[in-house]
Amino acid sequence: MSTPAADRTILVVNVNTSAEVTETIRRSAAAAVSAGTRVVALTPRFGPASVESNYESHLSAVGVLDAVQRHDGPFDAVVHAGFGEVGREALQDVLTVPVVDITEAAAHTACLLGRTYGVVTSLTRAAPAIHDRLLLSGLAGRCVGIRAVDRPVLELDADPESTAKGFVTEAQALVDDHGAEVVLLGCAGMAGVTEAVQAALPVPVVDGVAAAARLAESLVGLGLSTSKARSYAAPQPKPILGWPLR
Amino acid sequence: MSTPAADRTILVVNVNTSAEVTETIRRSAAAAVSAGTRVVALTPRFGPASVESNYESHLSAVGVLDAVQRHDGPFDAVVHAGFGEVGREALQDVLTVPVVDITEAAAHTACLLGRTYGVVTSLTRAAPAIHDRLLLSGLAGRCVGIRAVDRPVLELDADPESTAKGFVTEAQALVDDHGAEVVLLGCAGMAGVTEAVQAALPVPVVDGVAAAARLAESLVGLGLSTSKARSYAAPQPKPILGWPLR
Amino acid sequence: MSTPAADRTILVVNVNTSAEVTETIRRSAAAAVSAGTRVVALTPRFGPASVESNYESHLSAVGVLDAVQRHDGPFDAVVHAGFGEVGREALQDVLTVPVVDITEAAAHTACLLGRTYGVVTSLTRAAPAIHDRLLLSGLAGRCVGIRAVDRPVLELDADPESTAKGFVTEAQALVDDHGAEVVLLGCAGMAGVTEAVQAALPVPVVDGVAAAARLAESLVGLGLSTSKARSYAAPQPKPILGWPLR
Amino acid sequence: MSTPAADRTILVVNVNTSAEVTETIRRSAAAAVSAGTRVVALTPRFGPASVESNYESHLSAVGVLDAVQRHDGPFDAVVHAGFGEVGREALQDVLTVPVVDITEAAAHTACLLGRTYGVVTSLTRAAPAIHDRLLLSGLAGRCVGIRAVDRPVLELDADPESTAKGFVTEAQALVDDHGAEVVLLGCAGMAGVTEAVQAALPVPVVDGVAAAARLAESLVGLGLSTSKARSYAAPQPKPILGWPLR
Amino acid sequence: MSTPAADRTILVVNVNTSAEVTETIRRSAAAAVSAGTRVVALTPRFGPASVESNYESHLSAVGVLDAVQRHDGPFDAVVHAGFGEVGREALQDVLTVPVVDITEAAAHTACLLGRTYGVVTSLTRAAPAIHDRLLLSGLAGRCVGIRAVDRPVLELDADPESTAKGFVTEAQALVDDHGAEVVLLGCAGMAGVTEAVQAALPVPVVDGVAAAARLAESLVGLGLSTSKARSYAAPQPKPILGWPLR
Amino acid sequence: MSTPAADRTILVVNVNTSAEVTETIRRSAAAAVSAGTRVVALTPRFGPASVESNYESHLSAVGVLDAVQRHDGPFDAVVHAGFGEVGREALQDVLTVPVVDITEAAAHTACLLGRTYGVVTSLTRAAPAIHDRLLLSGLAGRCVGIRAVDRPVLELDADPESTAKGFVTEAQALVDDHGAEVVLLGCAGMAGVTEAVQAALPVPVVDGVAAAARLAESLVGLGLSTSKARSYAAPQPKPILGWPLR
Repeated sequence: MSTPAADRTILVVNVNTSAEVTETIRRSAAAAVSAGTRVVALTPRFGPASVESNYESHLSAVGVLDAVQRHDGPFDAVVHAGFGEVGREALQDVLTVPVVDITEAAAHTACLLGRTYGVVTSLTRAAPAIHDRLLLSGLAGRCVGIRAVDRPVLELDADPESTAKGFVTEAQALVDDHGAEVVLLGCAGMAGVTEAVQAALPVPVVDGVAAAARLAESLVGLGLSTSKARSYAAPQPKPILGWPLR
Repeated sequence: MSTPAADRTILVVNVNTSAEVTETIRRSAAAAVSAGTRVVALTPRFGPASVESNYESHLSAVGVLDAVQRHDGPFDAVVHAGFGEVGREALQDVLTVPVVDITEAAAHTACLLGRTYGVVTSLTRAAPAIHDRLLLSGLAGRCVGIRAVDRPVLELDADPESTAKGFVTEAQALVDDHGAEVVLLGCAGMAGVTEAVQAALPVPVVDGVAAAARLAESLVGLGLSTSKARSYAAPQPKPILGWPLR
Repeated sequence: MSTPAADRTILVVNVNTSAEVTETIRRSAAAAVSAGTRVVALTPRFGPASVESNYESHLSAVGVLDAVQRHDGPFDAVVHAGFGEVGREALQDVLTVPVVDITEAAAHTACLLGRTYGVVTSLTRAAPAIHDRLLLSGLAGRCVGIRAVDRPVLELDADPESTAKGFVTEAQALVDDHGAEVVLLGCAGMAGVTEAVQAALPVPVVDGVAAAARLAESLVGLGLSTSKARSYAAPQPKPILGWPLR
Repeated sequence: MSTPAADRTILVVNVNTSAEVTETIRRSAAAAVSAGTRVVALTPRFGPASVESNYESHLSAVGVLDAVQRHDGPFDAVVHAGFGEVGREALQDVLTVPVVDITEAAAHTACLLGRTYGVVTSLTRAAPAIHDRLLLSGLAGRCVGIRAVDRPVLELDADPESTAKGFVTEAQALVDDHGAEVVLLGCAGMAGVTEAVQAALPVPVVDGVAAAARLAESLVGLGLSTSKARSYAAPQPKPILGWPLR
Repeated sequence: MSTPAADRTILVVNVNTSAEVTETIRRSAAAAVSAGTRVVALTPRFGPASVESNYESHLSAVGVLDAVQRHDGPFDAVVHAGFGEVGREALQDVLTVPVVDITEAAAHTACLLGRTYGVVTSLTRAAPAIHDRLLLSGLAGRCVGIRAVDRPVLELDADPESTAKGFVTEAQALVDDHGAEVVLLGCAGMAGVTEAVQAALPVPVVDGVAAAARLAESLVGLGLSTSKARSYAAPQPKPILGWPLR
Repeated sequence: MSTPAADRTILVVNVNTSAEVTETIRRSAAAAVSAGTRVVALTPRFGPASVESNYESHLSAVGVLDAVQRHDGPFDAVVHAGFGEVGREALQDVLTVPVVDITEAAAHTACLLGRTYGVVTSLTRAAPAIHDRLLLSGLAGRCVGIRAVDRPVLELDADPESTAKGFVTEAQALVDDHGAEVVLLGCAGMAGVTEAVQAALPVPVVDGVAAAARLAESLVGLGLSTSKARSYAAPQPKPILGWPLR
C-alpha cells in the first residue's frame, strides 16, 4: 500500500500574504516529514497580511484556493496552514488529494498523546473561531481551554524570546489550572517558539504545521484520500462570474 | 426603545450571482417585514451562479462581503441569504448593524414553534454544510433530519409545481418518519414554493429569508446589534494585498 | 403574508400576582413592539407574590393558564413572562396562537447577537431552573454562566439604582471572566434596570420581556404559529375534577 | 446508617384523579418494597382524569402538591407517579424527605441493567415530554427510542391482554430495530401488564412505579435525602394569593 | 415480585489485595443493606496493594474476575468496589446476577438527591478515570468537578481525622465554588470518613459502597438482572490459553 | 525534529493468542510504515483465542501488558491492535513511548478524510464496546453507525472471499442508508479483506492496524510521546501480589 516517500510532494499553504511567515511554515513542515518527502510552501497572491478575524479568515480562504489552483506541478497532499481559519472544506471539494487543516491535525495528534489538551494562541479574539473548528471536529470536549498571549501575529516574530515566554506562561496555566495534558500552539509559523515552549513545559507541545504535514504524508503513505461521496463531492461545473480563480 | 419602522432599511444579500434569485429573495423579505421597512436586495458582482458546494460557499462569502461593502446608502441590518453557507461571521466583523443568517433565523424561529424541526433542501450534498451551521448554533439537537429533493438550485424555479411537490414529499416524510414538528425550507428564493408546501403540510413551514428579514427588523426595533466584544470585534486595520474589496 | 400590525394584540402574562410587576412588564413589552400592536398584560388571580422556587413556579403555571383561559377578547400571541419558569408548553397545548417564553426568547435573541451569552438573575437558587430551560432549548452550550445579584425579586424595584449597580457588577464579571458576548437580564419586570445596565456595559443587554414581545409579534407577522402536530397537540376533552380553570 | 424498615412509609402519589389507577399503582409499589415498609397511595383531589398532555401535566403537578401537603401522618419518602410528567422539583422544594420521579427511577434502574434502553408509552404525543425529562436527567443519550401503543391511558386497563400485546410489539421493535437492552414501561399503573410484557421479552422490563418505590426506600435506608443547598432549597415564606393549597 | 431478604447474598469485591480495606468495605455494605441480606466481601488473590492508576486498574479487573469466579457458594448480586476502575462490564458478561459498580451507583444515587454533584477522591491522577466512567454512564454532565485530597489510598486510613478534614475541605470547595448539591466520596473503604464528612457538610454525602450494595439489593428485590441481549451477552466458549482463571 | 526512520521499531501487539492473526497484523503494519521502520509483532502468552466480549477484552488487556513488559529489545512506539478493546491506557501508564489504539487511530484518520464514518465489525455484540471507545475519544458524534457481518473473528480468515463480501454489504449500507463518507474495518487482522472491500466501495476504507502503525511512526517522527502529566503518569512503585507480570 505504501508508495516511495521520494515521490511525494506536500503543498503547505500559508493563509496570509507574508512571505516570511510562509518560509517559517515551510521549515516547520519540512522538518516534520520523512526524508525524501518534498515540501512546497505557497503564499496567496492576495489577502490580508495576517489573519486574525473572521473577515480576514474568509478572505484568506479564497486566497488559499487561488494559490492551490494556480500552482503548477504535481502534489500529493495539501496542508491548510491557518490555525482556526475557514477554508479546508473548499479545498477538499476541488481536489482529489488529502487536505489537512493544521487546527484539526494538532487536535487529533494531541488526542493520541493525552486525555485533554489546551491551546495557546495569539489574540483572545481568535479563540472563538478556533473553538468553532474544534466543535465541528468533535474534539472540543477534550479541549480544556484556549488562552491568548494577546500579541498580534505579525509581532510574534519580532521578539521571539519574549513571545516564547508569553506562550510558556499561558501554557503552564493551562496545565496547572485547567488540567491540560498536551498544549497546542495555536498559530502557524511558530517553528522557533515551539522548541522553546517545549523545553519549558512538562507536557507535549504540538505545532499544528508539523503535525499536519506529517499526517498528510501519512495519509498519502496509506493510500488514502478525501472521501468524495457526499460532503466533499466535486462541485458541478457552472459559470463563476468575474472571478480570478480558474 | 422602538424606532419608527419607516426609517429602517434591511439589506438582503443573495449568495449567488443570479439576479432572478435576488428578486425572489427580495420579494420574500419584503412580504415578511412591517409596513414602512424598506428591503434592498443585493447581488454579488462576482461568484458562482448557484451555491451548492463548500467551494462555491467560500467564494460566495467574499462576493457577499464585497456587495455589502460597496453598497451605497444607509442600512440598519443585513440578511445573509444563503442556506447553509459560510460568511455571516465575516460580515459581523466589519459591520456595526445586526447580521442575520437565514439558516440560523429559520432554526431559531422553528424552535419557537415546535419541539423539533426538519429541513428540506435542494441537494443531498448540501446537507452536511447545513448541519455544520446548525451544530454551531446549538440547535442541531432539535433537528430530526435534513432531506433533499435532489434538484439543482437553478432548476427549482423551472417547474415550480413539480418543485413544490418534491418539497412536500420530503417534508411529509420528515413529519411522519422523523417526528418533525416544523419544516424549514433549506434554500433561499423559495417564495412561491413556500406557500404551496405550507398549504399541503399539517405543520408550520418556515422560509429562512422571511424569518431572517423579520428577525433582523426585530433586532433593529429592539435597539440591539451584534456584540463587538470578542468574536466579532472589528478587525485591526492592516494591508490587504491585491484585493478588490474596499 | 404580513398582516396589518394594527390588528394585533399580544397578551403578556406575569407569573406572579403583583400588579406593579405586571405594569412594569407591560411597559417593557409595549415599548418593544411596533406601533399599532397592542399589548395587554395579565396578572394571575391566584399564586405567589413572587416566583423564586420550583414550588412557586409550578403554582404559577396554573395561575398563568387560568389568566389566559379567562381572558375575554381576541389576542394573536401570548408571552409567558416568567424567567426560568415552567408552563410554556401547557399554554401551547390549549392555544392555537404562538406562545413565547421570555427565557427562550432572550436566549434565541442573544444567539443572533453574539457567540456566547451570560445571564444575571435575582437569586442563586433561580439559576438551576433557568439552566434547565436553556438545556431543553439547545442553547445552554452557548451560555457561559448564570450569576445572581442575590436580592429577592420583590426588592429589586425598591432601590432601582442599587439594583442596577448589582446587575452591572455581575454582568461585567460574565463579560470579563467568562467571555460573555451578550448579557440577558434574567427576571421579568426589569424595564428601568435594563437601560441602566445597557448604558454601563460594552455588550448588548437583552431584556426577555422585550425580546419575547417582539418575537411574538414577528411570528404573527410571518403568519406562523405553534405546531399542533405532536408535542403541543390539543389535549383530548376529558373530565377535569374540581378545577377552577375552565 | 440503616433504620428498621418497619418504621418506613413511602407515599406514592398518582398524577390523575382515578382511584382505580391509584390502587394499581399502590399494588405495584407495595410489591416492590421490603417487607415492613408501608406504602400509602394518594389520589389528587382535583385535576384531570388522565394525564396525557403538557396542559394536564402542569395541572396535575399542583394536584400532587396539594395531595402531599394535605396528607396527614408521617412519611419517609415520596414517589411522584407520573411517567414523563412535571412536578418532582416542586415537591422537593417543600419537603425534606426524598422525592423520586418514576420516569427517572426507571431510567436510572435501566442503566444499571443494560447499556441502552427504550421506552414504550401510551400515546405518541407523550414521547416528547418523556424525552425532556430524560434529557434533564442526563440519561437521554442511553435511550434508543420511545415508542407508543397509541391507546389512551384510561383504555389500557379495559383490555389488559390486548394492551400487553401492544406493549410487547413495540418493546420487541425497540430491542430488534433500535438495540434496546432494557425496556421501560412508560406509564404508571401497569402492574398487570408488566408481568405479561416481561414474560414475552428477552430483556429486562422496568416498571417505573416499582423501581421508584424501591429506590425511595433505598434512599431512606441509606439515610439520604434531597439536597437543600441550591436547586431544592425551601421557598421563602411569602403570600400566596387565593390558593387552595395550604 | 419481591423475594424474602433473608435469602439474599450480596458479593462485594474489593479491587485491591488489602484485607483491611476489604473489611472496611464489607462493613459499609453490611450497614447499608436491609436486615436479613448477607454481605460477603472478597479480596482478590493477586493484584496491586492499592489501585491508583490505569495500569493497576486493568490488573485489578482480572483479580476481581478471578475472585468472583472462584467464589464458592450462591450469591444474588455483585458489587464492584473500585471507584473509577474498569471491570464491571467483564463481570456482567460472565454472570447472570446484577453487577453494580460503586462509581456508577454513587452517581445515580446522587442524581436522585440533587441536580448536580461533585466527587472528592484520593489522588488527582485518579480523576480522569473517574470522569471516563461518568461520561459513559451519561451522568458526567451533572458532575461539577472532581477534586482530590492528594493522599495515596493506603494512607487514608492511617490518620482518619486528618483524612476526613482533607475530604471536608475539598467537598466544601465543590459546594461553594462549583455549585455541587451532593458530594460523592470517590474511594472505596471510606466508612469512617463518610460519617465525619457528612457531619461537616450542608449537603448529602454519598458513599459508593453503601449506595451500590443497597442498589444491588434493590435490583434483586425487584427481580431484575443484567440484560444479556447485546452488550453483556455470555461469551462464546473458547480456549483461554495459560490463564489462571477458571 | 525528525529522526532517521531506520532507527525506529514499532511494537504491534495482538490482543488474542492466535499466532496467525499476529502475522496478519504484522503484515498490515509493515506495509503501512515507511521504508526503514521495523515492525515487531507480539502475541500474548496467555489469554483468549479471540476477543469478542468484555470478559475477553479485560483478560486480553493484561496479556498485552505482559507481552510488552517482557519484550526484550528497544522500541519506539506501541500499537494496541484490538478493535474496541480496553487496555491502551494501562500501557500508557507504564511506558514512555507513544501508544496508539487501532480503534482510535482508525477514527482519527477517518475524520481527516470525511465528515462522517461508519464501522463494520465481526459481531453485533462487539458494537457497544467499540462505541464506548469512540465516545471517550470524542469522535462518536461523527460515527453514523456500527454494523456487523455476524461472523466470529476466527472464521473471518476461513473464507476470505465470503468475508469480504459480507463486509462490502454492510459497508455499502453504511454509505447508502446512513451517510457514511468513510468506512472503518472494525477488526484487527483484516489485511486481505481491506483491499477487497476498498476495491468494491466508493469511499475510503480505513484499516485500523495500518492507520495506527503509521500514526505511531508519525508521532515518533515528530518527537512526541504520551503526556505523563496526569492521566498517564507512571504508577507509584508498590507491591503487586502474586502477579505473573514483571
